[in-house]
Amino acid sequence: MLSLPKRVTIVDVSPRDGLQSEPVFVPTEKKIELINDLISAGIPKIEVTSFVSSKWVPQLADAEQVLAGISHNGGTSFQVLIPNERGYERARETGLIREITVVVAATETLNRKNVNMSIADSMRQVATIFAKAKADNVRIRGSIGVAFVCPYEGRVPPEKPMSIADQFFKLGADEVALADTLGAATPDHVYGLFAPIKDRWPDKAMAGHFHDTQQLALANILAAMQAGAEVFDSSVGGLGGCQFTKGATGNVATERVVYMLNGMGIETGINYERLLEVSSQAQAIVPVQQSSAGAV
Amino acid sequence: MLSLPKRVTIVDVSPRDGLQSEPVFVPTEKKIELINDLISAGIPKIEVTSFVSSKWVPQLADAEQVLAGISHNGGTSFQVLIPNERGYERARETGLIREITVVVAATETLNRKNVNMSIADSMRQVATIFAKAKADNVRIRGSIGVAFVCPYEGRVPPEKPMSIADQFFKLGADEVALADTLGAATPDHVYGLFAPIKDRWPDKAMAGHFHDTQQLALANILAAMQAGAEVFDSSVGGLGGCQFTKGATGNVATERVVYMLNGMGIETGINYERLLEVSSQAQAIVPVQQSSAGAV
Repeated sequence: MLSLPKRVTIVDVSPRDGLQSEPVFVPTEKKIELINDLISAGIPKIEVTSFVSSKWVPQLADAEQVLAGISHNGGTSFQVLIPNERGYERARETGLIREITVVVAATETLNRKNVNMSIADSMRQVATIFAKAKADNVRIRGSIGVAFVCPYEGRVPPEKPMSIADQFFKLGADEVALADTLGAATPDHVYGLFAPIKDRWPDKAMAGHFHDTQQLALANILAAMQAGAEVFDSSVGGLGGCQFTKGATGNVATERVVYMLNGMGIETGINYERLLEVSSQAQAIVPVQQSSAGAV
Repeated sequence: MLSLPKRVTIVDVSPRDGLQSEPVFVPTEKKIELINDLISAGIPKIEVTSFVSSKWVPQLADAEQVLAGISHNGGTSFQVLIPNERGYERARETGLIREITVVVAATETLNRKNVNMSIADSMRQVATIFAKAKADNVRIRGSIGVAFVCPYEGRVPPEKPMSIADQFFKLGADEVALADTLGAATPDHVYGLFAPIKDRWPDKAMAGHFHDTQQLALANILAAMQAGAEVFDSSVGGLGGCQFTKGATGNVATERVVYMLNGMGIETGINYERLLEVSSQAQAIVPVQQSSAGAV
């Protein structure tokens, strides 16, 4: 039989990655409603926002208000994206942060485009943020952007993301996520990068973040599970489909992932029927424009 | 690493399964153009038509004309669907048949709905058709419909399709295809049915026919390859999306499968760039109505 985990943790990233990609600002109360809806479906973890400067991502300028407005009493945990030290300080000031994620791109070109610094400089900043988070007893995820294929540098040599993963874990990360930001990776590539990192860090969690540009996300999740990954990001309703950016589509839809995992008897703790309702509602938050691509 | 084949044979079934599902009759010359376009993209095998009675499937009433109109000189081979003995005789009369496929459903309910006979009666008919095909030196595929999930009987016990596969091979089939007609199967289910049949018949070819209702087709192809399957059906442009039948969507798009296989270094012999052109043209044959489901 295929080697698969008994249980998987789904992280719905729609409030952050989904809404960040949309050209419109979704009102704060709509974001809070989306997150509370996701909680009601039993989503175990939600990436609720990013403490990025509103100058760069105005869509998420309300990070503090969103975090303050959602229900913190259920079984759902929340992670927030931290772009820099200032962001960490803002997040800490809310008193509501238990888990953070930081992102470093696997290629110099994209890392410079994203944050205007080298990967080495990003890692120095990461070290400072991780030290503060450890002191605050905050769980840490290190995410590696374009771990497989970069829009500027093409197929990424595995040594690059492997080196960043090693540095993340050595700096104290509890989990490392490999992101197929373009949605261009194929399952052998995914397996071939997850497996050696998991071999080196067997007691640490590995997460997959797959965009669905080529509808390969589910196949890639299958391959990543076979390599030992047990945490997967997804976006309810496929929010963030981003019809406006050529070649960049959204995260894999949460309900698609849950359907597959349910079918395979892998536990998620998610109420699928409720999730489908939430998906319908979520898609109404952002008017979806049909692309002309049809079934392709 | 994942256990994967070096080479896969893609069978584009759009002229048969795709167009059969459309509510309109596509003119014969358009079908011939589609098939010749697929040939130009290097598709190694095409399911060109079905010799079904035009009373039941008027969309394919032009089987003889299509077969006579296409180019038989290239490297592409053609298979035709044979529903019964009369269909085999019609196909043989064309003098152009080298490969046939017959279909038996894995559940009694669906087999009766399809052909108004029991599985046992269907197998008796199959035995007669296979005997004639063997005498004519025609290659034989036996296809098993709803091998995983039946719309009437739900999840299909594996003994049923396994028994039909055994009978197909004992009757002389060169290849057996397992069809996820509903597009509802998950990868463990796929692996768990392909693997034991392949174990029993290691020298025979195994094919997968996956509809993409839950966008699981590529993950299911990945699982089937790991279980030893090396032939996959698909439909250029996802033709046969069939927006009119609730819950039934089309075959996985050929270009999606080829993208995945190319990315994994698995040979198909297909010209991907030309395939994308053919896909655009193919979608123009049948006006695609956008569903309101958006990214879900």
